[in-house]
Amino acid sequence: MNIFLDVMGGDHAPGEIIKGSIDAIKEYNISLILVGQKEIIQNELAQYDYPADKIEIIHAETVIENTEEPAMAIRRKTDSSLVVALEEMKKRDQSVLISAGSTGALLSGGLLKLGRIKGVKRPALASMLPKENGVSLLIDTGANADCKPEYLLQFAQLGTIYFENVLGKKNPSVGLINIGTEAKKGNTLVKTAYELLEASNLNFIGNIEARDVLESKADILVCDGFTGNVVLKLTEGVASFILNGVKKSVMSNTTGKIGGLLIKNNLRSFKKQFDYSEYGGAPFLGVKGGIIKAHGSSNAFAIKNAIKQSISFLENDVLRKISENSNEEEV
Amino acid sequence: MNIFLDVMGGDHAPGEIIKGSIDAIKEYNISLILVGQKEIIQNELAQYDYPADKIEIIHAETVIENTEEPAMAIRRKTDSSLVVALEEMKKRDQSVLISAGSTGALLSGGLLKLGRIKGVKRPALASMLPKENGVSLLIDTGANADCKPEYLLQFAQLGTIYFENVLGKKNPSVGLINIGTEAKKGNTLVKTAYELLEASNLNFIGNIEARDVLESKADILVCDGFTGNVVLKLTEGVASFILNGVKKSVMSNTTGKIGGLLIKNNLRSFKKQFDYSEYGGAPFLGVKGGIIKAHGSSNAFAIKNAIKQSISFLENDVLRKISENSNEEEV
Repeated sequence: MNIFLDVMGGDHAPGEIIKGSIDAIKEYNISLILVGQKEIIQNELAQYDYPADKIEIIHAETVIENTEEPAMAIRRKTDSSLVVALEEMKKRDQSVLISAGSTGALLSGGLLKLGRIKGVKRPALASMLPKENGVSLLIDTGANADCKPEYLLQFAQLGTIYFENVLGKKNPSVGLINIGTEAKKGNTLVKTAYELLEASNLNFIGNIEARDVLESKADILVCDGFTGNVVLKLTEGVASFILNGVKKSVMSNTTGKIGGLLIKNNLRSFKKQFDYSEYGGAPFLGVKGGIIKAHGSSNAFAIKNAIKQSISFLENDVLRKISENSNEEEV
Repeated sequence: MNIFLDVMGGDHAPGEIIKGSIDAIKEYNISLILVGQKEIIQNELAQYDYPADKIEIIHAETVIENTEEPAMAIRRKTDSSLVVALEEMKKRDQSVLISAGSTGALLSGGLLKLGRIKGVKRPALASMLPKENGVSLLIDTGANADCKPEYLLQFAQLGTIYFENVLGKKNPSVGLINIGTEAKKGNTLVKTAYELLEASNLNFIGNIEARDVLESKADILVCDGFTGNVVLKLTEGVASFILNGVKKSVMSNTTGKIGGLLIKNNLRSFKKQFDYSEYGGAPFLGVKGGIIKAHGSSNAFAIKNAIKQSISFLENDVLRKISENSNEEEV
């Protein structure tokens, strides 16, 4: 089991990435591979008491920034933590790479360096969305801005394998993001995707309107990568707009401030519901290797959970299952 | 000036539609045309004291339900309040129809009965989205699920004319909903639309990420009708999910309940920010006549404001301006 961490990527790198790694080593009794500037990593590690034989360090001189053009950066920055990690992954079986750095570079790198699993038309990014009791898996959230109907069917298949194996629910339900609940609704893409999903052996439960995304019965929500990215980002944006607005309005006078103190604990437990980092990061499904995109603002807790997710990903042999399913499809 | 109300459409029809009409007659000193079952309308009107010469009633026997297939309903239900109103509109200049009934039927009816303004490729529905100080106009929110780049350019032009004339801001800014801020981001549709917008004489300010929709600087947010409908409905869904969640968590124990009482007024004024019904309904721009879609749950206040919006729409000659702008485009 080879779990790589891109130590240099993310808003709180390398500190929180390394703290989360140490926590995971202690909690799950595993070994990890940290990729980044050796000196920086060693300095960070010096703060902690940990079993030294559980950590391997691979030096990488640079880091790919969020502002760089992904494909170009992957080709040129061969000494970046991301590219060095991907090259090393290829040499070892049973590997997962976790990165909180540039999403575009991670997807591009995964595709260019690891390649697609045979039979997978388009690998897809699957992100967790909160709902009242648990999460939904939204797929694709940005790997494929332009899609064909058959890609959406395959996203549903990839999502189903992931949900069954890593999130542990047999025969998870699949919904199609649409602008109405009736079968004939939507644009050309989703109308055909609907037919493909209905004819499949997946547990397809029909269209899900955007209004119901956070309260839907669907475990897996399927859409093209443009729509999925809009849904993911808009959900974050509206939630934070409302929570900030509530806070500001509560704090706008003395009566409100006293009330605010009294509801503080309740609100905290409500907000925890949105901390879906306990489910780990977003897996990039369909490439030849495990790729987990951790949120850019990941703290140690989020990183620890992404590591837990990686263990489950490897133990449950998700790559082999995707490969078997996709080869069947090709026949 | 002929302002028609589909009295039978909406969750609170006919009561709130008629109450809003009476309020508007008194406040704006105008005449209105109420379309629906005569007896029901007369019974409702009997509750109010109002200048009787300001109301014309046109009888229509039936109503198109939300569950009916729009185009079919428009063709078959010739005695419905919507179709009767549209037929009457065609006979009179300077007309606007307000309906809180089926959106699909209203769009279909507008297209089939009134037709497109010459030069307008695809009429589009423009909905208000709240932001911290005011609103943005999101166009298209569902009339065109499949779009070409040139439609998006025209949506921006239609939105600009509306914003200048009815919302009273000169040279309003236009943003393109996208999955990144850089010019080269997005799917094939928005990449080309970006170029068209940039080459236009509109006040184009670039891509707006979904995360920033409620806090963007754009007065007008342009997208295809599938994306727009997802953005509109998801915004409503997430906002209500969070506000309900806050309420439930606050009320979950005694301390919280006391705090809840103290913040009640502050929260109410925050929520008022989302009551964008003060800006009226969603105009369907590009058809030969004014069509305003009021929210299905419209109360008298929302209807009164849709009437105010209709007055402004007619007084500022929006149809003529669209027509002039679109004919220029054709040259």
